[in-house]
Parts: sequence; C-alpha cells; structure tokens
Amino acid sequence: MSKKKKKAVLLVSGGLDSATVLAMAKAQGYECYALSFDYGQKHNAELNAAKKITRLFGAVQHQTMKLDLNVFGGSALTDDDIEVPVAQTDDTGGIPVTYVPARNTIFLSMALAWAEVLNSDDIFIGVNAVDYSGYPDCRPEFIHAFESMANLATKVGVEGHHLKIHTPLINMSKAQIIQAGLEHAVDYSLTVSCYSADQQGRACGVCDSCQLRRKGFEEAGVADPTLYS
Amino acid sequence: MSKKKKKAVLLVSGGLDSATVLAMAKAQGYECYALSFDYGQKHNAELNAAKKITRLFGAVQHQTMKLDLNVFGGSALTDDDIEVPVAQTDDTGGIPVTYVPARNTIFLSMALAWAEVLNSDDIFIGVNAVDYSGYPDCRPEFIHAFESMANLATKVGVEGHHLKIHTPLINMSKAQIIQAGLEHAVDYSLTVSCYSADQQGRACGVCDSCQLRRKGFEEAGVADPTLYS
Repeated sequence: MSKKKKKAVLLVSGGLDSATVLAMAKAQGYECYALSFDYGQKHNAELNAAKKITRLFGAVQHQTMKLDLNVFGGSALTDDDIEVPVAQTDDTGGIPVTYVPARNTIFLSMALAWAEVLNSDDIFIGVNAVDYSGYPDCRPEFIHAFESMANLATKVGVEGHHLKIHTPLINMSKAQIIQAGLEHAVDYSLTVSCYSADQQGRACGVCDSCQLRRKGFEEAGVADPTLYS
Repeated sequence: MSKKKKKAVLLVSGGLDSATVLAMAKAQGYECYALSFDYGQKHNAELNAAKKITRLFGAVQHQTMKLDLNVFGGSALTDDDIEVPVAQTDDTGGIPVTYVPARNTIFLSMALAWAEVLNSDDIFIGVNAVDYSGYPDCRPEFIHAFESMANLATKVGVEGHHLKIHTPLINMSKAQIIQAGLEHAVDYSLTVSCYSADQQGRACGVCDSCQLRRKGFEEAGVADPTLYS
C-alpha cells in the first residue's frame, strides 16, 4: 500500500461473506466505501446487519441504494409468486430458484459508477465459487469478464489506470471464510445469511443459505453465533 | 427471423437515437420490451417522449425504472452542483461533463436482467461512436466486452444460447440515423434530445445535444421538426 490511503468500494450485503471481505479490505489499509442494495429482497433484515457491520469496521461511507429489481421478477428472493425453497443444496446441479437475474452484474455496475466518481480503482465483492457454483455470476470467468468490460466502460481505461475487482473469497470454503473473518475480529452474530430471516434478523436454520452457514461453522470447528428463530 | 416472434429488450431514452433503434427492431420483426430510466436526469421530459415513442411503435411493454444515480453524483446531467454546459462539442477531446459514470453499463445490466427473465437473447441500445466519441461507454470495444461478460453472467451462457447486444447506430452519423428513422416512419417531433428541455419537451437549441441534432437534420437535408423554446 502507498502511504496515502487508497479508496475501495465494497458490496456489503450484511451476510457472512461480505462482512469478511470488509474486514479483509480494512486490514489491507483501504478506506472503505460500502454499498448495499434494497432490491426488494424478502430477507431485508440483512440491510440492518449491513449497517451494523459497516459501523463496526469504520467504513467512511455506507450507501443503501433502492433498486426495484422485482419489476422484472423471476427470482424466489424478490418475486412473491415464487417461494423460497426450504432446501435445495443437494439438487443435481442447475441454477437455484434463489438466483436473482443479473444481480452481481447490476451490483458491480453500481459499484463501478461510485468507484469512478470517487477515483477508486478497487472494488471488492464477496463472491464464492465453491459453495455457490450454481450461480453463473459467482464464477471467476464472469468476474474476469466484468473487470475487462469495466476498464473499457469508464474514465479509468481512458486515463490509463487499471480497475480491479477483488474477490478474496472466490476459492475459499465457507469454513475457511469463517476462519479468515475470525482472525480479523468479525462478529458473525451481527451478520444475516438466511433467505427467510425475520425482522430481528433471526435465521430459519433450514434454508439453503442457513445450511451452508451452519456447516461452515461446524467445519471451522467454532461455535455458531447465529441467532435462530 | 424464425416464424415465432423473437423478444427483444430495448433501452429507450426518448431521444432521437433510441426512437430510431426501436423502429428498426420493430421492422426486423421483434416483439419489443422497452426500458427507460428515471435516473435523476435534469431533462426528464425525455421520459414523456419515451412513453409516446413506445406507444407509437407498439412496444409490448414499457417499463420506467427509478434509479437513484445522483447518490453518486459526478455528472452535469444528475448533479445539482455541476452545470450543463451551453456547448462543449468543439472541445479538444476529453470526456464531457455530461458523461454519467458507468451509465451504459448500468442500463445494459438492467436490460440483461429483464432479458434473462423474458428468455430474450437480444438487447438493443442506440449508442453511437461517431458523434459521441468522448463517452467511453459508447465505443464498440466496450459493447463487445459487455456482450462477452453478459454471456458469462446469466443462464444464457450456461444454457448455451448466445445473447447479443445490437447497436445498429454505432457507426452512423446523426444524418444517417435520421434518414434511417424517416424510412421507418419515426416522428422525430415526439423525441427529446436536449439536456435542458423544459417540462413540455421544448429544446434549448444551444446545448451540445441540440447542436448535434440540428446539424443532423441539416446534413440529412430534411426539415427539423424539433420544438424549440
């Protein structure tokens, strides 16, 4: 790192992964600008979690942007006509119904806009290809393609900088992510992963996301601080 | 074209270019799904124009999505602290202050989400590299990079389709665009290009965008139907 602090834009959902990424970026000396989205997700308790997490790690700014993605429908996470499944993890491949169309493309595009205004060359996103391989927009090849596009889309490319999309978790298991977060003092009781969390952020314990998270704590060999309903 | 009508998602701003693209896509036999954005632009008379244009060409659906891009600031078109310049066309290169950070990336990402839900493999955007070469996100290399990324971002790529970003105007002059539109019966009096149009859609006649448009009609050798204030 140079002596002058570098600015980074981070996508912070309020979940376990993005909280870990925020802690990592902070430890690397970045000034953190956190971006969350109120996109019609049924589990909007995660937005309260995002507030707590960004406060805990002293983000310079935390913006929550309202995005009306449910005008397009098509996902169990935003569409009232599609139920969030109780569990789908052991399905035989295919794209889960909890996939939100083009979500990471949209979120990264917004981060890109903010990065451009801030003159930041660094965007962080907590995507993970190991546990979520069913989501096309969590794959390394997607991230690389987005980075190439981003460098042509904005002033950055024209001015000869290079904008980087950082994905520190992309090849980590959930257990490894938890271990890394604990080394950076992440308080996981503040985070919400559950697709059906109640307004107090208490997790259902049975949905895909809860199961992955619970298994992560088990495999990491640490107590699970999640608040279950 | 196959016998069954193909669906296309089109970005329709209400300006001259996107009206022409809509007419072209319609003439090619596409079922048109038009997408507009209320993104805090000062010239929101163009949204009324978008409504009239999509009605004229029988779009199957027209969505106007609210996007709070001015939370990021940084452009004369959305930021109250930056004035829309009277004219900047003959500047010595560089990126105009009317450039909105990552705008086309964001708009195309939204179109991508809708296309995915509709099972459409075709997105149309009226970018033009000739008259707007100062905007990095109007260049062919940006469009190609976005298309590559989009094919990795969504179900399309996983399912083996190919999503195409159509840019029929990219190498046309404003005069050529106008001539093409007139062949498809575009009523340009309905369109609004002016960055400072009043609520009735009347153009200032002096901003960058007005000058380009006026010159286009002159060079096309047709009467300019624009309503000036």
